[in-house]
Amino acid sequence: MPNNALYAQSGGVSAVINASAWGVIEAVRGHPAHFSTCYAARNGILGVLNEEIIDLDEEDPLTLASLRHTPGGAFGSCRFDLGDPDTDREQYERLVEVFKAHNIGYFFYNGGGGSMDTALKVSRMGDLMGYPITAVGVPKTIDNDMGYTDTSPGFGSAAKFIATTVREASLDVESAHTSSTRVFIIEVMGRHAGWLAAAAALAQEYDGRPPMLILFPEVPFDKSEFLTNLQMAVHCHGYCVVVAAEGIKNPDGSLFSVAQEHDVYAYTQLGGVAPRLGEMIRQETGHKLHWSVVDYLQRAARHLGAKTDVDQAYAVGRSAVEGVVAGNKSFVPVIKRLSNNPYRWGIDQVPLEQVASIERGMPKEFISPDGFGITAACRDYLRPLIGGEDFPPFESGLPCYPRIRGVLRPQRCPPMAYGSL
Amino acid sequence: MPNNALYAQSGGVSAVINASAWGVIEAVRGHPAHFSTCYAARNGILGVLNEEIIDLDEEDPLTLASLRHTPGGAFGSCRFDLGDPDTDREQYERLVEVFKAHNIGYFFYNGGGGSMDTALKVSRMGDLMGYPITAVGVPKTIDNDMGYTDTSPGFGSAAKFIATTVREASLDVESAHTSSTRVFIIEVMGRHAGWLAAAAALAQEYDGRPPMLILFPEVPFDKSEFLTNLQMAVHCHGYCVVVAAEGIKNPDGSLFSVAQEHDVYAYTQLGGVAPRLGEMIRQETGHKLHWSVVDYLQRAARHLGAKTDVDQAYAVGRSAVEGVVAGNKSFVPVIKRLSNNPYRWGIDQVPLEQVASIERGMPKEFISPDGFGITAACRDYLRPLIGGEDFPPFESGLPCYPRIRGVLRPQRCPPMAYGSL
Repeated sequence: MPNNALYAQSGGVSAVINASAWGVIEAVRGHPAHFSTCYAARNGILGVLNEEIIDLDEEDPLTLASLRHTPGGAFGSCRFDLGDPDTDREQYERLVEVFKAHNIGYFFYNGGGGSMDTALKVSRMGDLMGYPITAVGVPKTIDNDMGYTDTSPGFGSAAKFIATTVREASLDVESAHTSSTRVFIIEVMGRHAGWLAAAAALAQEYDGRPPMLILFPEVPFDKSEFLTNLQMAVHCHGYCVVVAAEGIKNPDGSLFSVAQEHDVYAYTQLGGVAPRLGEMIRQETGHKLHWSVVDYLQRAARHLGAKTDVDQAYAVGRSAVEGVVAGNKSFVPVIKRLSNNPYRWGIDQVPLEQVASIERGMPKEFISPDGFGITAACRDYLRPLIGGEDFPPFESGLPCYPRIRGVLRPQRCPPMAYGSL
Repeated sequence: MPNNALYAQSGGVSAVINASAWGVIEAVRGHPAHFSTCYAARNGILGVLNEEIIDLDEEDPLTLASLRHTPGGAFGSCRFDLGDPDTDREQYERLVEVFKAHNIGYFFYNGGGGSMDTALKVSRMGDLMGYPITAVGVPKTIDNDMGYTDTSPGFGSAAKFIATTVREASLDVESAHTSSTRVFIIEVMGRHAGWLAAAAALAQEYDGRPPMLILFPEVPFDKSEFLTNLQMAVHCHGYCVVVAAEGIKNPDGSLFSVAQEHDVYAYTQLGGVAPRLGEMIRQETGHKLHWSVVDYLQRAARHLGAKTDVDQAYAVGRSAVEGVVAGNKSFVPVIKRLSNNPYRWGIDQVPLEQVASIERGMPKEFISPDGFGITAACRDYLRPLIGGEDFPPFESGLPCYPRIRGVLRPQRCPPMAYGSL
């Protein structure tokens, strides 16, 4: 029986995906009777297809342990979906070829909903092609939109960064609003789900504190209602901080940030909700304004990692391995909330086919009736997820993020017929 | 002799301007023989004109002490320049009226080059109008563009945040560049001086590491050279991280981010170098790209304050007061570098009229010959300024930034003839 483990990362990375990697690697090494060794694929499933298998025994043990506090995807990630097993059979034959060549019997795929689908395909391939492979998903996404898990590792740290920076920037705007900027717009990620935008509300110390208005992808953007609320905030507080998810939509369902032909707020194709909103507000109200687009900064901000999030990322990695050792296959370890106050959590296992490609938006009861804020229930849900600090070590004033060497194992298979991917 | 002290904040605020406030307040309180009490004006010099004088004795001492770790301008800031003493005499008469009413003999004005000019005008007004006022400037600006000081409090923390977040986001981009984003643009502040953009270079672990290209306001933007270098970086490393100062200029000296009529990269008036650069790169190279505009986040990011910067902000506040006690007038305490390695610094005093309205760009010898990076001399200059961590206290996962109550003293003067400002 092939008994090497292979770990790989997929999709958009996060500040804590490497903590999951370390959880997997450490746990595999803790079961020498079950696993012979642990490898990592370079750039996710592409690394399997390209036969780029990283030999983790070549890494400095301290570097591997420091994965726990290093953002990004240390082994490389990818955006690549496996084809249909019926029509793209050669992909699956290639996977088997590479797995066989490196004696891989266990595949741990760390990613979001789409990546769980890839893990599921690998798992089914085993049965289909008679190759004994155990595939397990390790959950990750800053979007918090995976189903069947209370939260996804990566979300808590991004949420903590957003809430922190919104609180800080709001103090800045508040300071000089009488003679300077009155409106500040912060664009955060979230194409379909407003979780990250919602997290900004944690910056509020109490009612009426910034951010005053949050725009969710789940709530159709009503320009006149938005402007009325914005003017009211400026009237009451002297200024208004707006947090907008990148995926907010017009009432007709089209994306707000995609330029229309003959658009009065002519904007480039590239999008950017914040500058577009800013231009609209400037034209309609004349308020002096500033805007920020956080983009990758929010999902890479390991310097402000949430301890809860780091712990959970590490735990799902470990749990994936422990589940395999217990004889399970085709599952995803997920976070289960045991109690809210004090916050306690555990790990559950859910079948891969349930989690794969499911997306979870904000429930209606988490968005306030006016559509511009969150409810107490949402606040209770979010608060523990950003809990605790877990600062990385600093050196010369900057966080220290060691890099893995990434030494590849000698290739044993012929190159792919259709070239490397 | 009037012997109350008045502290006020001016211009764009920073992550550490409140540390200077605390330095002033604490030092004033430490000299009861010299000062009767310390007030703060609400919203800078506007608070004097509007007679909005905050009674600091009404504040919780713990809240005042926590100014050391609170970003923004706790007392409110302003963008307002005093007029010419000859033509706007009523402004100066009003200042004297308010100073007299509250027995203010010492004025500490905390701001950048322009605010030093205001402090100078207040100082000269004293002589002009026969009112005994001692005016002192307390330096502050994230732009690091004040003259006669080795650095300006506020810069080090902004620089630390930029270098950290560029390092983190670059790890993110590096992770998935083979199948996703290949170019990432980060826009930082700096209208005239490239110091903040330069600080991004500290993220580099060694040569060739991101950021690969830095665009300075001091270097005219050469599109074809930029694109050649960008393509080279993508060829060598697989991806390219670009850091651009908001104030980069075309070869003709015009701002890059202001839309031209019939501009091929049609962009709104609001500016935004990053989206504009992004659109250009997309059209010319077709690379998948992302961009971020950091804006106020970088100058508010107290959660990542540089200890050196916090210490210096506090020290210039204290030193302003100590200088006054020693009998000095019309000066600015500035940072003096005593040695580079180990980094040692002290405080010097420079006459207000020297510092007022002077701007300091990057010296030529700090920018690498190709114009896209910094030299070793610049690196040696910058490195100590981001040194040390000084995390604020956290509560429920977020930094704890208490607010002052801001109780105003009873008004004793008639309202201004021309209404409040």
